[in-house]
Amino acid sequence: MQRIYFDNAATTSLDPEVLEAMMPYLTEKFGNPSSIYSYGRESRLAIENARKTVAKILNAHPAEIFFTSGGTESSNTAISAAVRDLGCRRIISSPIEHHATSHTVEYMNRQGNVALSYVRLTPDGHIDLADLERLLAESREKCLVSLMHANNEIGNLLDIHAAGEICKKYNAVFHSDTVQTVGHYPFDLRNTPVHFITGAGHKFNGPKGVGILYINENVQIKPMIHGGSQERNMRAGTENLYGVVGFAKALELATSRFETDKEYITGLKYYMAEKLKAEIPGIYFNGDTFGKSLYTVLNVSFPKTEKSEMILFNLDINGICASGGSACTSGADLGSHVIRAINNNPNLVAVRFSFSRQNSKEEVDYVVEKLKGML
Amino acid sequence: MQRIYFDNAATTSLDPEVLEAMMPYLTEKFGNPSSIYSYGRESRLAIENARKTVAKILNAHPAEIFFTSGGTESSNTAISAAVRDLGCRRIISSPIEHHATSHTVEYMNRQGNVALSYVRLTPDGHIDLADLERLLAESREKCLVSLMHANNEIGNLLDIHAAGEICKKYNAVFHSDTVQTVGHYPFDLRNTPVHFITGAGHKFNGPKGVGILYINENVQIKPMIHGGSQERNMRAGTENLYGVVGFAKALELATSRFETDKEYITGLKYYMAEKLKAEIPGIYFNGDTFGKSLYTVLNVSFPKTEKSEMILFNLDINGICASGGSACTSGADLGSHVIRAINNNPNLVAVRFSFSRQNSKEEVDYVVEKLKGML
Ligand SMILES: Cc1ncc(COP(=O)(O)O)c(C=O)c1O
Ligand SMILES: Cc1ncc(COP(=O)(O)O)c(C=O)c1O
Repeated sequence: MQRIYFDNAATTSLDPEVLEAMMPYLTEKFGNPSSIYSYGRESRLAIENARKTVAKILNAHPAEIFFTSGGTESSNTAISAAVRDLGCRRIISSPIEHHATSHTVEYMNRQGNVALSYVRLTPDGHIDLADLERLLAESREKCLVSLMHANNEIGNLLDIHAAGEICKKYNAVFHSDTVQTVGHYPFDLRNTPVHFITGAGHKFNGPKGVGILYINENVQIKPMIHGGSQERNMRAGTENLYGVVGFAKALELATSRFETDKEYITGLKYYMAEKLKAEIPGIYFNGDTFGKSLYTVLNVSFPKTEKSEMILFNLDINGICASGGSACTSGADLGSHVIRAINNNPNLVAVRFSFSRQNSKEEVDYVVEKLKGML
Repeated sequence: MQRIYFDNAATTSLDPEVLEAMMPYLTEKFGNPSSIYSYGRESRLAIENARKTVAKILNAHPAEIFFTSGGTESSNTAISAAVRDLGCRRIISSPIEHHATSHTVEYMNRQGNVALSYVRLTPDGHIDLADLERLLAESREKCLVSLMHANNEIGNLLDIHAAGEICKKYNAVFHSDTVQTVGHYPFDLRNTPVHFITGAGHKFNGPKGVGILYINENVQIKPMIHGGSQERNMRAGTENLYGVVGFAKALELATSRFETDKEYITGLKYYMAEKLKAEIPGIYFNGDTFGKSLYTVLNVSFPKTEKSEMILFNLDINGICASGGSACTSGADLGSHVIRAINNNPNLVAVRFSFSRQNSKEEVDYVVEKLKGML
């Protein structure tokens, strides 16, 4: 049986070209980037070149890019530092953040360091920016605003510039979880009012175990992980050398292919949406699917029946990879906090399909055909 | 020019067999271990098998092994949790810890959460266990004792059982940085009185960017990195799948070769020490070199002359990789806090040579010959 991988928002395959770029560092070029001899300096150079590549693509300064172990670590670092080092006494976040953000802000709130407010959503699951402004205007404490750029479950995209301008007006620190957009959208950080953004290599055909944290040059924070002087004292620990090299290469490739990939993948998403609408009665799309939305994600609700409750199981049996919510929670079977937040209809079963350039219309045809038998 | 790599305490080459074990996960087996479909479950299984392998080798329960991004993250997690979750109000550490420990305990101390004391060293650089006991007996607060198993610069080995028994007697939490010994020595954690130990894959021919934290089943801590439910809610973030697989494979290989490697590498260390003594006057070994010491590390002080101050530079010119101290600080050129702590003689220049099974006596001959010309 052929496997159909429609779960690219959970993770993606490593691009063979990326692996090729990593290979020298997985074999002969293993020197410690902190060593002073030339063999170590070669590794250091590879890391600094990777940093420059990433910075250039995101239009940031290399000194604003820090390599981490992934998106989760990056968001934890930003959020904890905003409270600890930047004096934020209130966090304003949303009910549809990834757990990397929501569990972190909830934890900080439980620790008693910081108040926590949630911004309202519009009916189609966008951040209500008027409500954000109201919350900021009402707050007497310095605020951290943590709002994701793209939601990993329903795909909704935030207007990061508009949100950032509001934060700026109220002197708030702005962190945006951009894990679903770095490598999928162009960034122009020098002209974006944001203090922290995050990225994870494995979301755009790069390696797992590596991410970035962008820290705007105007904020000064302390590290979360203490030790050696790696990453200019901002993130201690021997560097994941091949991971860093792979991250930069993957971002380079993704950027060079952006227009083509975006068009192609948008085509797949719309094709599947149309086909589902035409062939399966009673379905419903979650989020602003055809508006401000990730081109990679299509979240569909099916009418709840005894059969459709088994839909993820039956997709799996048929070799189709898709997910009920975020990968990180699907195992726990708690249902999706995002779907609950935007659509409290218990009579629907939500499935997220997420695409990459490796997918095809033939796969969509096959999946829709199979889905018909699962309802 | 042939390169001679005598800096295996800084990092090691990735064993080709380890890379081979990682390759399937760098190519077709890329599924997210948290996904519920069978393709994700395969990845989950790979991680759980890796955990079992590691646990078995260290004689721990699989539930006590947590994968992290490296030794530094592991130590940060343990130390911060001991203060935050286990009620430790004093940390007892040593002046010769790796910065992953020393900078973390200093940071916690500066934050005002916890008092900090340093245990005395014996003249050959070992932890004075009587002083440890005295400090514990005097302390009215609950203590965290953080003492490294093997020092990465001078190689001194702690009697972890003896230290652990003292900690137990005073109800202290015991963390040992075992980054230089995991993969180099056998462990029997079920019969070792320690609460936390740490490991880093790249120190024993495994991958960079992955480590372990052992958390004894009798202690309950909260994560340092919040988010998804990976690592049983103890370490959030999409797993470094190939890193984890590689870590376990490298530990397996190291364990199977332990006796042979230990004998061979000890032979190299002693051979080099003898040769240096015979051929270079005025040298001096740092630490308990021929006693309780890592078989991988030989730390040599040379008489300080205008020429010998350039020794690391001249080694590099000759293609010889060795280091002045810990890799993580050598770039900053601050000198070694370890050498300063054990031997305050400013008229000596310390160089650490550290060996692996890939090194040979011929390389030692070559290096000693070259060294003669550098003094
Ligand atoms: C929106 C979003 N934020 C954060 C993360 C966390 O990234 P990682 O698991 O790579 O740490 C993910 C993916 O898991 C995500 O989709
Ligand atoms: C004794 C010791 N502890 C901790 C570390 C930190 O490990 P890593 O850099 O892999 O995080 C190292 C090596 O760098 C070490 O030698």
